[in-house]
Amino acid sequence: MIGERPAPGVEVGPGDDAAVFSFATNSVILTVDSMYEGVHFNLDTYSLSDVGWKAVAVSVSDVAAMGGQPACCLISLALEGPPTEQDIKSLMSGALEISEQCHCPIIGGDLCRSRSGMGITVTVAGCQSPTGAVLRSEARPGDTIGVTGTLGDSGGGLYVLGSPEEMRSRYGRLVEAHLRPRPKVQAGQVLASCGVSAMEDVSDGLATDLAHVCEQSGTGCEVDEAAVPMSEELRLLGRETGRDPLAWALSGGEDYELIFTAAPERLDEAIAALAGHGVRACAIGRVTEAAGGMKTMKADGGSAELENTGYDHFL
Amino acid sequence: MIGERPAPGVEVGPGDDAAVFSFATNSVILTVDSMYEGVHFNLDTYSLSDVGWKAVAVSVSDVAAMGGQPACCLISLALEGPPTEQDIKSLMSGALEISEQCHCPIIGGDLCRSRSGMGITVTVAGCQSPTGAVLRSEARPGDTIGVTGTLGDSGGGLYVLGSPEEMRSRYGRLVEAHLRPRPKVQAGQVLASCGVSAMEDVSDGLATDLAHVCEQSGTGCEVDEAAVPMSEELRLLGRETGRDPLAWALSGGEDYELIFTAAPERLDEAIAALAGHGVRACAIGRVTEAAGGMKTMKADGGSAELENTGYDHFL
Repeated sequence: MIGERPAPGVEVGPGDDAAVFSFATNSVILTVDSMYEGVHFNLDTYSLSDVGWKAVAVSVSDVAAMGGQPACCLISLALEGPPTEQDIKSLMSGALEISEQCHCPIIGGDLCRSRSGMGITVTVAGCQSPTGAVLRSEARPGDTIGVTGTLGDSGGGLYVLGSPEEMRSRYGRLVEAHLRPRPKVQAGQVLASCGVSAMEDVSDGLATDLAHVCEQSGTGCEVDEAAVPMSEELRLLGRETGRDPLAWALSGGEDYELIFTAAPERLDEAIAALAGHGVRACAIGRVTEAAGGMKTMKADGGSAELENTGYDHFL
Repeated sequence: MIGERPAPGVEVGPGDDAAVFSFATNSVILTVDSMYEGVHFNLDTYSLSDVGWKAVAVSVSDVAAMGGQPACCLISLALEGPPTEQDIKSLMSGALEISEQCHCPIIGGDLCRSRSGMGITVTVAGCQSPTGAVLRSEARPGDTIGVTGTLGDSGGGLYVLGSPEEMRSRYGRLVEAHLRPRPKVQAGQVLASCGVSAMEDVSDGLATDLAHVCEQSGTGCEVDEAAVPMSEELRLLGRETGRDPLAWALSGGEDYELIFTAAPERLDEAIAALAGHGVRACAIGRVTEAAGGMKTMKADGGSAELENTGYDHFL
């Protein structure tokens, strides 16, 4: 929609009936995600630039979760009323910023009217890693479960956005994690090259996303609560507000970190490989037989059902 | 989202973070279009199956307008409330019907909640013709302008949908043209192989879509009003309602026929080639120098500005 110079691969950019992109291979990863005002975001807490950023980031993250390299994207934007030029510029500035960081130029899209509120749908196309796409369905009992970064920051950030204004500056990193998530493109590629068995991004919440992996792999899982990585800021927010930060980590969602599984030695190697790229990751549990269900192991040695309390769009 | 057997090219279908499709070439045509309830359709006149059909057809038509072959599509669906299984089945039945007719399997998508009303966004990916994508920007003064099929049927159908119920059966073909447009995939490929200079589908209306071609090619145009192809049903509707059918033909939009330009002899050859495939097409005017503007030539020899009165999403 906006582009200063044609990026590599762009044969036909915005302005025609469709765009044409030349991919490195003819196997292409394709994904689409939508965000709606009043459902996924509100314009009293998100700037238009944040909306553009997050809409692109969320779809790019799906390609990262396959171990792929995003190549280009298209944006379909719907607005209730005619936009000002400044509105479009603001929204596109965020979209362009993250699309450039991810080497994923915006090559087309459309603009139309919606009945109520803004809707933004981003399609991302990308290339697989040389070892192929990493699926959700290949986790095996005995695999270790790993995760990149820290969990719950986005959920904590959303909580802060609903709290008194002065908290926003003190918990700026959590707010940023919520408004401007950074898809783990490089980490996904490193993990694919390490041969992890299954991978998924944390969009709905660890519990829900792990449930996808378990359902599609025909397995169960055990998560060690004490091993779930949480940031100092999130723990501090928990103490200040009397809330359990683990709830944000397990079911806050929208962290866009990567969950991955691999045989134990391979998972250790993968974590070491990520460290070599400056990405923190850690083991948080094990893949079990399906009959074991989904469990969390408490610090005191007890266990509980891992409740699939992640985001349901219709609750 | 629904698929009985994996179609050729589908490496990873619905259900993972993203889909993977193997294209015939690594140059891929990509397009996205959205339809919103209350803006593009209403559920008192469209069945859910019509909505699914039309959303896919509209995006497929963009690939047809480049002379390409659609290969696969993704559907992002947003609903105000939780859908029943029957709702999803109905919507998908129309989407599947046209996607199968166009050999364009549905390989992925997402489902989420909207604030108000239904929103449906369809991404279509396809392959170029061996001669490359046909753009809007290559029309040249002296070219003849051609169009496939008849124009105005969709606009007439929309008028009928807002008229007393009994008219719907009498003008069934016009209603069908509005609810279930058929993208001109084969015609687009024939025209690309004939070396037409520019092409676009009729989505916003002949006047507006021709304006795109003229703007992007840096030309003007003249349309012979008497040559604009209209169906018998549309003329009959005009007589019955006292309306000028030409208004529907010039600015009704959503016909999803193809407008194309080529040097006069080449255009004659293209029309003959289309006839060989059972597709009617005719010449309707000429590409002129930009200074000539956009004109309609009246039957009495007079001329008028061709008013760009096509659909504006924000009017």
